[in-house]
Amino acid sequence: MINGLRALWLENRQLRIRDDVPRPMPSSGEALVRVLVAGICNTDIELTRGYYPFTGTPGHEFVGEWEGKRVVGEINAVCHACEACRGGRPTHCERRTVLGIKDRNGAFAEYLTLPAENLHVVPDEIETADALFTEPLAAALEIQEQVSIDRNDRVLIVGDGKLGQLVAQTLALTGCQLTVVGRHREKLDLLRRRGINTADAPKGKFDIAIECSGNESGFALARAALRPRGTLVMKSTYAGNLTFNASSVVVDEITLIGSRCGPFAPALRLLAEKAIDVRSLLQATYPLRDAVTAFEHAQRSGTLKIVVRNS
Amino acid sequence: MINGLRALWLENRQLRIRDDVPRPMPSSGEALVRVLVAGICNTDIELTRGYYPFTGTPGHEFVGEWEGKRVVGEINAVCHACEACRGGRPTHCERRTVLGIKDRNGAFAEYLTLPAENLHVVPDEIETADALFTEPLAAALEIQEQVSIDRNDRVLIVGDGKLGQLVAQTLALTGCQLTVVGRHREKLDLLRRRGINTADAPKGKFDIAIECSGNESGFALARAALRPRGTLVMKSTYAGNLTFNASSVVVDEITLIGSRCGPFAPALRLLAEKAIDVRSLLQATYPLRDAVTAFEHAQRSGTLKIVVRNS
Repeated sequence: MINGLRALWLENRQLRIRDDVPRPMPSSGEALVRVLVAGICNTDIELTRGYYPFTGTPGHEFVGEWEGKRVVGEINAVCHACEACRGGRPTHCERRTVLGIKDRNGAFAEYLTLPAENLHVVPDEIETADALFTEPLAAALEIQEQVSIDRNDRVLIVGDGKLGQLVAQTLALTGCQLTVVGRHREKLDLLRRRGINTADAPKGKFDIAIECSGNESGFALARAALRPRGTLVMKSTYAGNLTFNASSVVVDEITLIGSRCGPFAPALRLLAEKAIDVRSLLQATYPLRDAVTAFEHAQRSGTLKIVVRNS
Repeated sequence: MINGLRALWLENRQLRIRDDVPRPMPSSGEALVRVLVAGICNTDIELTRGYYPFTGTPGHEFVGEWEGKRVVGEINAVCHACEACRGGRPTHCERRTVLGIKDRNGAFAEYLTLPAENLHVVPDEIETADALFTEPLAAALEIQEQVSIDRNDRVLIVGDGKLGQLVAQTLALTGCQLTVVGRHREKLDLLRRRGINTADAPKGKFDIAIECSGNESGFALARAALRPRGTLVMKSTYAGNLTFNASSVVVDEITLIGSRCGPFAPALRLLAEKAIDVRSLLQATYPLRDAVTAFEHAQRSGTLKIVVRNS
């Protein structure tokens, strides 16, 4: 019988390890999942900066074990009854809880709970370290659920971090004319080794620009790169407000579109097919007891994916 | 032989009447149009506030006479050769001049020039006072070129001014579930008399919100009214920057879309069919010599369309 659970805990923007977190009790329809590994996402870091007033255990990228199977999980636990759910937008459920983000403890812990319907079994051909990227890869694929992109499109990705890398790899599969701009030589090298263009971005020339940097100057760069009637996809979470030139958005008839969680099934399929290289995005792995140090590492400039393992 | 032309002149944000403006010389393919009437648009007022650094004669809504016919004219004079033109986006021509807005003198004058290809003959069944609304009505119709709207959609219009009124009337024709919010009792009465709902707008309930107020609080109201994955159409010109909560746009996967000039042919068709009532939007008419006074009138709160006539 486990009484106290080990988990990372966020409270008043401070992180600490606790060994006395009550073991989560799955309610009807929920699964109690033993966490194997969990990844640190920029959203987790934004949470520690007050992006959203969350108290509890963060973490929403994980691979776990449930009923003897390896599983990954969609992060929105939804009601199936509200207007958003009935309207076919369950990730926008009005009563949702979100793993490690909103009203539900997350994955930097020995155990987590999620509705069993949220879980996807990881195919045998995907190693656990790779399956950890299912959630961010799904988020990258959400772009293509929202905007049609094909080989005729000139697409700019702003940001060479973890998210930018995954977005770049998924978009490269469309055959579009892709350019990535970033600030980190090693990360740009990763892209170039995959044949992705990392030249400077001319202004006013791109059909689609995807903001993956999460900062205002990245947004401005993406905006300036668009042709009239171009589309700017906002893929990052931001703490705080953004200011933009509204009249230029009207005159150029620009479309801005926010983009969040995406579909797990195609993400798992791409990982099973080895169509996406996620291994090169792994930076370091820490045991759960050192998760606070892991967060410190994740915030250093130029860091790729930091993993917390549960043993 | 006319040597000096009478025209309104904007310079250093100051308006004055000049009687010494050189008569415009139409170049190849251009028509010299005698202006009959011209309407004051909020964009003209924004120009006097520095929205765009324009020196010359403003005015882009007009009915004129050319080769014995009454004509209206599309305001973007384009090159047909640049990437935007070849890409099917001529209103975004990289080398465009824009009547009374950019590098081309406008309609508050005895004469104007436009490429002959920009002109549309006004059908006999449309009176001149009504034809004056062709350009803003086309701009209202641009929304439906960009966003599909039908009877299942809950649509909010923010702003009960000239533009909001035209947008409301065009959208009412789609049968959508329409609400307009505004600040002027008389203008809201105009809408109610047409059977358009002017109740308060609940938050988070609209599929589409159309910002026609041109101010930051109108933008915030439109944003807050949207359901997740809703669409905010920015229809107004703004002087200056807008600030918005970027993370909420990402989390709610909102689409923002800027909207400018629209198609003249369907606007003229709707006017010929009397499907749109524009006459109730006419506030007052001034002779050209009093155009400065006309602009002062147009800036008073609650004013509808002010017309400048050329005789």
